[in-house]
Amino acid sequence: MKNIVLLGATGSIGVQTTDIIKAHPNEFNLYAMAFGSQVEVAKPIIEELKPSVVIVKNNEVKQALLPHITGDVTVYSGLDALNEIVKDPSVDLVVNALLGSVGLEPTLEAIRARKQIAFANKETLVTAGHLVMEEAKRYGVDLLPVDSEHAAIHQCLRGENRQDMKQMIITASGGSFRDRSRDELIGVTKEDALKHPNWSMGAKITIDSASMMNKGLEVIEAHCLFDVSYDDIDVIMHRESVIHSMVEFADQSVMAQLGTPDMRIPIQYALTYPDRLPYNMSSGLDLKSFGTLHFEELSFDRFPCLKMAYEAGREGGSLPTVLNAANEEAVQLFLNDKIDFLGIEQAISDQLEQHDTIQSPGLDTILQIDQETRERVRQRY
Amino acid sequence: MKNIVLLGATGSIGVQTTDIIKAHPNEFNLYAMAFGSQVEVAKPIIEELKPSVVIVKNNEVKQALLPHITGDVTVYSGLDALNEIVKDPSVDLVVNALLGSVGLEPTLEAIRARKQIAFANKETLVTAGHLVMEEAKRYGVDLLPVDSEHAAIHQCLRGENRQDMKQMIITASGGSFRDRSRDELIGVTKEDALKHPNWSMGAKITIDSASMMNKGLEVIEAHCLFDVSYDDIDVIMHRESVIHSMVEFADQSVMAQLGTPDMRIPIQYALTYPDRLPYNMSSGLDLKSFGTLHFEELSFDRFPCLKMAYEAGREGGSLPTVLNAANEEAVQLFLNDKIDFLGIEQAISDQLEQHDTIQSPGLDTILQIDQETRERVRQRY
Repeated sequence: MKNIVLLGATGSIGVQTTDIIKAHPNEFNLYAMAFGSQVEVAKPIIEELKPSVVIVKNNEVKQALLPHITGDVTVYSGLDALNEIVKDPSVDLVVNALLGSVGLEPTLEAIRARKQIAFANKETLVTAGHLVMEEAKRYGVDLLPVDSEHAAIHQCLRGENRQDMKQMIITASGGSFRDRSRDELIGVTKEDALKHPNWSMGAKITIDSASMMNKGLEVIEAHCLFDVSYDDIDVIMHRESVIHSMVEFADQSVMAQLGTPDMRIPIQYALTYPDRLPYNMSSGLDLKSFGTLHFEELSFDRFPCLKMAYEAGREGGSLPTVLNAANEEAVQLFLNDKIDFLGIEQAISDQLEQHDTIQSPGLDTILQIDQETRERVRQRY
Repeated sequence: MKNIVLLGATGSIGVQTTDIIKAHPNEFNLYAMAFGSQVEVAKPIIEELKPSVVIVKNNEVKQALLPHITGDVTVYSGLDALNEIVKDPSVDLVVNALLGSVGLEPTLEAIRARKQIAFANKETLVTAGHLVMEEAKRYGVDLLPVDSEHAAIHQCLRGENRQDMKQMIITASGGSFRDRSRDELIGVTKEDALKHPNWSMGAKITIDSASMMNKGLEVIEAHCLFDVSYDDIDVIMHRESVIHSMVEFADQSVMAQLGTPDMRIPIQYALTYPDRLPYNMSSGLDLKSFGTLHFEELSFDRFPCLKMAYEAGREGGSLPTVLNAANEEAVQLFLNDKIDFLGIEQAISDQLEQHDTIQSPGLDTILQIDQETRERVRQRY
């Protein structure tokens, strides 16, 4: 029985993680969960899975939640509680499904407490990948990726010698606007952007998919997680999202992981690794009825966010922090109807251009640059 | 440095194995080679790779070869020499690229001598899989498959727990006649049958691909090599031969191995396992320029040889021996213009029907049934 802390329980990944926990009651126990303010989403989870500890954003949310709590549940509020719960001796596995760079400090604390970590919080790695991976190495902790692409790569590398790897090939569905030209992106709506062709995900990542920044963040995440040079990470457009990603080895053999576009499968993989448990919540992949898989080159000109991510990743230092912070804020502005879709990439580009990169920044520097960048983006609109 | 014995050196797999040995002179030494009668093919190999021992089919071939031998090479003839050389203490790795069930005895000897075995002789496993695998288990010897499909499955299973496997999915290009109906197979020529759409292989396996018996033999081979039930082996038509085969796990994850249709890649894999060495003899897989991969259901009605193989495999005992012997002889009759293409499946079907299966047959019984079946097929035409 694994005692799980689920950070970000009411988000898309969080709720799907509770599906996996429910499906395997003899394997997993939801020991603690944390969420921001979505009390209505949290209530049925708390009722059914009866965590011992619940952590919410602030006292206001705590007061709103308390009347609905029955039984032996302790409710805390605030970020400090996150940093504490991940160290709890009862905890075996931390699922970090937080959105954005708020997941950084709890991740570092979980690593230092040598917890197994299922990792769905790519912004943390983009923001401070070098710090996280240094700590992971020092404490001998494996970060098990939940993102379908990185889970695929993790599976392609099972049983292989890392030095035999030639390149990683990350697949991209192309997002909601894959068939539109640059000109056709002018004036697209939030509603259009939120219609992902294959995956059902949260709003932020769906917008990131439409701008291809999601793939850019994944490239930086892959660089960090698997310690691989940007020259050895390729991105290929694959409309069907059946092949979740690939690894090519020195002998030209390519290993790929395939499946239906159901995030609960990579979530379960991260929770059960190195084992695999049965999964029955969706019907398996049927290539016979699928018929055809397509692959296309992805153009940096068409998708400048991907290009910017490679550039920020290659430059390194504090530049990926700026990329991520500017993107998070710009996406929020777009979702709040403050800027248009193409304004997202413009906001990021502006911030990258005016930033003087600091090499090997420490945690304080990163947090400061993160805040400053966010403020600058917000102030402009 | 691995000392290699190459059985079947002048066949398609044999010659391609010598390409790999030449490409990695610091890794591999061709210690010994065996071939039937193709002296002209063997001469340049002997000249370049200078094996210490050469074994040929009979004294006649030996006498034809001897005038061309220079340097310190010992030439033997006959099957007994095969059974001896695989036990030679200098030998690290036996590549069994023999054609047909003649490879059975040397395989058993190599296993008993605990040699690493790269295995391209599927007829041996079909004929006497239970004997071979029992011995392999007893002596703790891994059979490393050279067939692209089984090499793919071997790679999909790396680092995995075997009990987590749900099914194997073997891909089939469909062979030369994949787009012809049953009616359109009447009167097809040997030349038509030998035109494989993707792979450049020997005549026997190319005919087997056209009849889909090759896939049937591969199903039986997979059953033996990976100890998997026939219910858990599926075959899917995949025209491009880019995905070489797949394994689906309990969690619905599907692992696949992809590559260009170049047999030297799986050959090298079997020679270098568990390492991988660089391979540069063909350009790597480029899915972007490939564009599209297709998958279709394979019909047992259209391809009765596949159906017969499953039936013979499921029945087990001596029936796969009959299937394989009848097929080998029938293909030879077709290549000698003695029967037409559809006559191959008829000959096999006749032999399967009249055979009373013997369960758990020993080596002598198998060899006897093999011979009797061959004679019956030959006598009918």
